[in-house]
Amino acid sequence: MSAMNAIQPPANPADAALALVDRQLESSLERLFALLRIPSVSTQPEHAADCRRAAEFLCADLASLGLEASVRETPGLPIVVAHDRSATEAPHVLFYGHYDVQPVDPLALWNSGPFEPVLVDGPATDSGTERCITARGASDDKGQVMTFLEALRAIRAADGRYPVRVSVLLEGEEESGGPSLRPFLDANRDELRADIALVCDTDMLENGVPAITTMLRGLVGEEIVVTCADRDLHSGLYGNAARNPLHLLVDILASLRDPHGRVTLPGFYDGVEDPPAQVRETWARIGGGDDALLGPVGLRIPAGEQGYSALEQTWARPTCEINGITGGYGGEGFKTVLPGQASAKVSFRMVAGQDPDAVRAAFRAHVRARIPEDCSVAFHAHGGSRASALPIDGPHLKAALVALTEEWGRPAAIVGSGGSIPVVKDLQEALGMDSLLIGFAKADNRIHSPNEKYDLTSFHKGTRSWVRVLYALAQAGATPG
Amino acid sequence: MSAMNAIQPPANPADAALALVDRQLESSLERLFALLRIPSVSTQPEHAADCRRAAEFLCADLASLGLEASVRETPGLPIVVAHDRSATEAPHVLFYGHYDVQPVDPLALWNSGPFEPVLVDGPATDSGTERCITARGASDDKGQVMTFLEALRAIRAADGRYPVRVSVLLEGEEESGGPSLRPFLDANRDELRADIALVCDTDMLENGVPAITTMLRGLVGEEIVVTCADRDLHSGLYGNAARNPLHLLVDILASLRDPHGRVTLPGFYDGVEDPPAQVRETWARIGGGDDALLGPVGLRIPAGEQGYSALEQTWARPTCEINGITGGYGGEGFKTVLPGQASAKVSFRMVAGQDPDAVRAAFRAHVRARIPEDCSVAFHAHGGSRASALPIDGPHLKAALVALTEEWGRPAAIVGSGGSIPVVKDLQEALGMDSLLIGFAKADNRIHSPNEKYDLTSFHKGTRSWVRVLYALAQAGATPG
Repeated sequence: MSAMNAIQPPANPADAALALVDRQLESSLERLFALLRIPSVSTQPEHAADCRRAAEFLCADLASLGLEASVRETPGLPIVVAHDRSATEAPHVLFYGHYDVQPVDPLALWNSGPFEPVLVDGPATDSGTERCITARGASDDKGQVMTFLEALRAIRAADGRYPVRVSVLLEGEEESGGPSLRPFLDANRDELRADIALVCDTDMLENGVPAITTMLRGLVGEEIVVTCADRDLHSGLYGNAARNPLHLLVDILASLRDPHGRVTLPGFYDGVEDPPAQVRETWARIGGGDDALLGPVGLRIPAGEQGYSALEQTWARPTCEINGITGGYGGEGFKTVLPGQASAKVSFRMVAGQDPDAVRAAFRAHVRARIPEDCSVAFHAHGGSRASALPIDGPHLKAALVALTEEWGRPAAIVGSGGSIPVVKDLQEALGMDSLLIGFAKADNRIHSPNEKYDLTSFHKGTRSWVRVLYALAQAGATPG
Repeated sequence: MSAMNAIQPPANPADAALALVDRQLESSLERLFALLRIPSVSTQPEHAADCRRAAEFLCADLASLGLEASVRETPGLPIVVAHDRSATEAPHVLFYGHYDVQPVDPLALWNSGPFEPVLVDGPATDSGTERCITARGASDDKGQVMTFLEALRAIRAADGRYPVRVSVLLEGEEESGGPSLRPFLDANRDELRADIALVCDTDMLENGVPAITTMLRGLVGEEIVVTCADRDLHSGLYGNAARNPLHLLVDILASLRDPHGRVTLPGFYDGVEDPPAQVRETWARIGGGDDALLGPVGLRIPAGEQGYSALEQTWARPTCEINGITGGYGGEGFKTVLPGQASAKVSFRMVAGQDPDAVRAAFRAHVRARIPEDCSVAFHAHGGSRASALPIDGPHLKAALVALTEEWGRPAAIVGSGGSIPVVKDLQEALGMDSLLIGFAKADNRIHSPNEKYDLTSFHKGTRSWVRVLYALAQAGATPG
């Protein structure tokens, strides 16, 4: 402890950096705007050079933060990697984000140029009018990425060093579903492996409640093709006597769920546990009721497993959905056809504890048992991944929750996501790393749509949040996990 | 009774005409071939003049048979009508057939020109090799029509007059589903109404068993469109909580039939009776087992109502078939979509005693009861018609059965047809007339396909059959019905 510190001890080690974040806000915005002006649309080959320019912009910015930064080639778009080589502090965090953006069409619906960022008033709400950064990528994901970089800048300016060991990984194919990331992770395991990944590509909850996504459901996709007669038949001449594959399909698909919304496959719920009571209580408090999820899409009544709220149904409970049925005549008018073949696409969303291979096998056995001897069924596998879930009493998670709670003045929530976030699975599989998904976007950010925006509050307090999280992780890192 | 008759009484009033049929066979074939050479394809406008030529050919032929014949205009293709104005004998029969034919493509698959009729050896079978008339329309329906006209010719040559009062109606839009027939029937009710219609557009059974089709199932077609969310959703983010219209549909559609293949709608079987025991026994004898219907299409196990053979299931039992389901993603690969809307087309085949309106109402009530309050369903009606069935002890039917049995040397069968034959419904609705469907085609005639054929036996004994049927109807006509 130095003499100077003894004279004026900071209330919190993050305070100096937080004050700098506030003072730097205008220049932070300038840097973000410069990045937003680069049309790094990864799905459009004519923007390949722009994507590289965005990577180089970020690489230079990371170098200016004292990191050893490089633009790394892949068979597709480059990946930016940066490390604080001087640091040894625990924990070692790997920040993930992406610099590519979605296409902008339909261009006519934008109120200003998608690559000409502006700060405008958002719509008036109960809590006043938000200032919003409007541009393609403002939220997804350039705005979110820059919250982390601006936090690093403030910390470095305030303290001269980072409280944790920092690595950064920014890819350019997130929006194009490109194949380059996973082989890159596999090829650079030793370089990239850290104690925890920080992923900034998710939303907050309503009313400014910060959230950390810790549960992502897994997926088993299956396509089944049922064949009965060897041709399409006239339903008058054959109906009743000849097996109709659509009847078989509806019987099979209807039998997959019981009247209480539970999946009937034997063993399906083996290993599945309810979220802890405290988490369920939090969700009941923050969820805004089932209507918060269902109301915006025109629904009211949760359709799934009874005894669980809509949030629980989508975040923490496994389920089976029919994603498509094809068979017979679907055009205008009517055709009295009895099809020879019909097919369905079915997916199972899984939670921690479930084995995708076991679910797939149970499904196929369930279907096969219902196919008559003179008919046949073919299966096509479409994807299979385990759910991921962080232990809710892990030290990193607990530290980050406290930090977010301090910044936003509301208890931070542990949430789930019904869908999958590919990078989380890749980091888990390739590097054995868990991810903390902390994001400051909002559901109304219009990502992938015209007039994408990021609230100035998201950007400002998001940057402050990372300052707090990094200091909090440093403290947790010193604590036995 | 004349002196001549007293000297040499014929064993059967039809015998002289039957002998003439045999002697005239060659010239009968020449007339049929002349008709077959006219490419009267009703679906192709470039053949409109050919269709008219076929109508005029038949009109002239009917006039040569002593009938008052005319080509009658319609908004579409002409209709040929002919009456024996001199006759008053009961019963009055109206013969129905059609002079139009299907298109011929793919032309490359024909062994000879589709409008260059030839007599060739058919494939060798257990019962020898059949001589076959090969041409488009040889069976459907020119060959069948000409069996009736050649029967008239022989009767007129033998006896100078017809044993019953004969009217003939030949249309030209049967293959094109044209709209002209029904308004023509409505507009000419008094002229066309007869005691019974004779329709020659159906098959015999296997092994030369003659058949009269007396039962035609009715149809109720329904399309249902189920709407849940107001848009397509991501099945990961919403699956389990948001109602999936495909789940609703499969539950509803699966609930329409019980595990024994019976339709579950309340009142569905009201008024439905089993065919008489003697008919069921005949069917068991003639049907060749379930395999006769199912084997040729690659099936083995009757799928419908338990306790009934495949023939009974299709001819005499009502049923429900799903004709199409559309919803979600049906293309290559997989899409984790939870559709906002899904639809199904469903048809009910009905037998005598069922009311289409009641079935439709019961179906809609069944569906509505299963739609949650926050979802909706729309219904679209696609057709509705009662079944038609002749009383099996009616005098015309009994007489025709005897006549056919005499000609073919095997007991003629009363059969049903699972499908509908539009003219039967039109004659019933417009003129209040029942139809006797008597045809001599065979299942292997390749109607609508390349190398359509009509067995010479079908043509020859078909002509003889009509001679016998007309004399038998004359006798029945004298008997109180």
